[in-house]
Amino acid sequence: MRKISDSKIEIKSRYKLTKRNLPLIYTPGVAELSEAIARNKKKIFDYTWKHNSVAIVSDGSAVLGLGNLGPEAALPVMEGKAVIFRGLAGIDAVPIVLATQNTKEIIETVKNIAPAFGGINLEDISAPRCFEIEKRLIKELDVPVFHDDQHGTAIVVLAGLINALKVAQKSIKKIKIVISGAGAAGIAVTKLLLKFGAKNIIVFDSWGPICPRCVYNKNDVKAELAKFTNKENFKGDLRKALFGADVFVGVSIKGLLKTADIARMNKRAIVFAMSNPVPEISYKEAKKGGAEVVATGRSDYPNQINNALVFPGIFRGALDTRTKIISDKIKIKAALAIANLVKNPKSDRIVPEVLDKRVVKAVANVFRM
Amino acid sequence: MRKISDSKIEIKSRYKLTKRNLPLIYTPGVAELSEAIARNKKKIFDYTWKHNSVAIVSDGSAVLGLGNLGPEAALPVMEGKAVIFRGLAGIDAVPIVLATQNTKEIIETVKNIAPAFGGINLEDISAPRCFEIEKRLIKELDVPVFHDDQHGTAIVVLAGLINALKVAQKSIKKIKIVISGAGAAGIAVTKLLLKFGAKNIIVFDSWGPICPRCVYNKNDVKAELAKFTNKENFKGDLRKALFGADVFVGVSIKGLLKTADIARMNKRAIVFAMSNPVPEISYKEAKKGGAEVVATGRSDYPNQINNALVFPGIFRGALDTRTKIISDKIKIKAALAIANLVKNPKSDRIVPEVLDKRVVKAVANVFRM
Repeated sequence: MRKISDSKIEIKSRYKLTKRNLPLIYTPGVAELSEAIARNKKKIFDYTWKHNSVAIVSDGSAVLGLGNLGPEAALPVMEGKAVIFRGLAGIDAVPIVLATQNTKEIIETVKNIAPAFGGINLEDISAPRCFEIEKRLIKELDVPVFHDDQHGTAIVVLAGLINALKVAQKSIKKIKIVISGAGAAGIAVTKLLLKFGAKNIIVFDSWGPICPRCVYNKNDVKAELAKFTNKENFKGDLRKALFGADVFVGVSIKGLLKTADIARMNKRAIVFAMSNPVPEISYKEAKKGGAEVVATGRSDYPNQINNALVFPGIFRGALDTRTKIISDKIKIKAALAIANLVKNPKSDRIVPEVLDKRVVKAVANVFRM
Repeated sequence: MRKISDSKIEIKSRYKLTKRNLPLIYTPGVAELSEAIARNKKKIFDYTWKHNSVAIVSDGSAVLGLGNLGPEAALPVMEGKAVIFRGLAGIDAVPIVLATQNTKEIIETVKNIAPAFGGINLEDISAPRCFEIEKRLIKELDVPVFHDDQHGTAIVVLAGLINALKVAQKSIKKIKIVISGAGAAGIAVTKLLLKFGAKNIIVFDSWGPICPRCVYNKNDVKAELAKFTNKENFKGDLRKALFGADVFVGVSIKGLLKTADIARMNKRAIVFAMSNPVPEISYKEAKKGGAEVVATGRSDYPNQINNALVFPGIFRGALDTRTKIISDKIKIKAALAIANLVKNPKSDRIVPEVLDKRVVKAVANVFRM
């Protein structure tokens, strides 16, 4: 594979540095803008890039599906996201990788650097810390805060599922869903599917199924999930849970499943194997197991279920309408907007292409509905 | 005056966002880079923009010469600096304005965001906090930290003075220098001039002259200065101090001096009135007072003594040679390099133009000497 192995982004000037421009770009010209903002803080949106800037903040504790690689190793991923922000949504996104993985310090640091940014994209921060970090920052900042691994994933999974269910001719209310992974993505996906009407979901973490009366160590968020999932108190392993399941959503680790596991699922099964970069089961193997619809996070097979379908439009919409709270209502509307761009969903086409220019517009538009 | 009243900078991608590039720019392609950096942290300089990125950090406590306008009001200035970093030195400079003016919190925040940056430019942070902040960050970070209001100003003042003394045919060792302003700039200028050989300096803060046995409230840094300046224990006001002075350096407040004050100075006087945006005395009035060489921070008169002659080259050199400490030796060499670019200094030409392309190269080169 060809490599891109240097920096992916750069800061450019929007004005030429000429003798004529210099006093306008710098002192004494900027003094006028500074004084205007000092008089009225809101003018920062007019006189600086804040109306269009997003900080992509990571502590490197959950880099892709690779684990806690640290902030330095997270930087190439954040630069890649910045390229997508620019290319798809025209947004100025700045990678910020943090030399701390302490929850309180992360919250303080993001609050301290927030004034220059119109939005905060939290990224690759491990659960359960990510939940508190997001919650506190939403409460304390006056710009939108969006943990993409949670909500970007949840929105794009729901978008894909809406169309996959059309292909499989099944209803969200009647299906059995098995989710592997109870990290940031798994928990957010589960919550959004429940909101959208799913009734029967079993979520697995690395210990086994989350269930109402299970004894092993759980965090608060898992305890909350236990109230709304696995109502039959199933206690077997993932393979057993797949018996009769209609939908598998993997946001966990590579190579977890085999063809035979898929074969146990219900007829016209839907398999979203989204571990990155290597899925829980390959597209080909899942197809061989008889699944009707298979999706992965990869671009080299059909049905790329990727957050890049979501975050550019979410931030474009939030920045343009100065929306602070990305509500569940907005998330569901965004999923429907993405799904609706595929006129006749087929088993190998349930979501638009990541580079489809209509996607950002459709998602950003839900902020005006 | 024409205005530039929107954002001055943007994040651009160095690669086109195509179907072919997408898997290289983003997942799965970036995974390889992340894993390589996780194995060897130094690879971050090869695989990301860290080799070329600088954070311009301000808390807005001393915006230009306008005072404590807050972080929002500081942002246009930082964007302006980013344009100059890009235009003159090809550096990716990111404005970071802080929602805190607490010394400890500033230090922690900068440390926490440091991993993505190859250098830290502290900017418009008021004295005396700026001294401790810089000192601690230099100690604790492994990239160069440079408070431009201190050292950028000190270097460019020294550069200008070297040539002004040639014009006035005076020697640094024999002249009387009066400095108005004992903030970040005034203190750094004084220290560098002393290092360069000046023997007779009187520094004024807003209370009066700093002197060895004066009683009014002083901070540690001023107490240290008192050991090396005002050896004759002069206690009068600024106007009196100018009697027989050879050099006046103003880094304080606008309109402090009148023509008559300049007329009191020694023959062939040198006046650097650098308060921004409005100088201590205008170019014309200082000339009328009989000064031989007059310089300001402004581009609309001759002799623009501006930090922009310094910081692009300092960071270009430090980034390219991975130099962590910007020593006094480097500062003096940089001042000499800037001064030497003016072949035949004249009273209206003591420093090169800010946009002179040779300046960055000359300053960056001193890091290789």
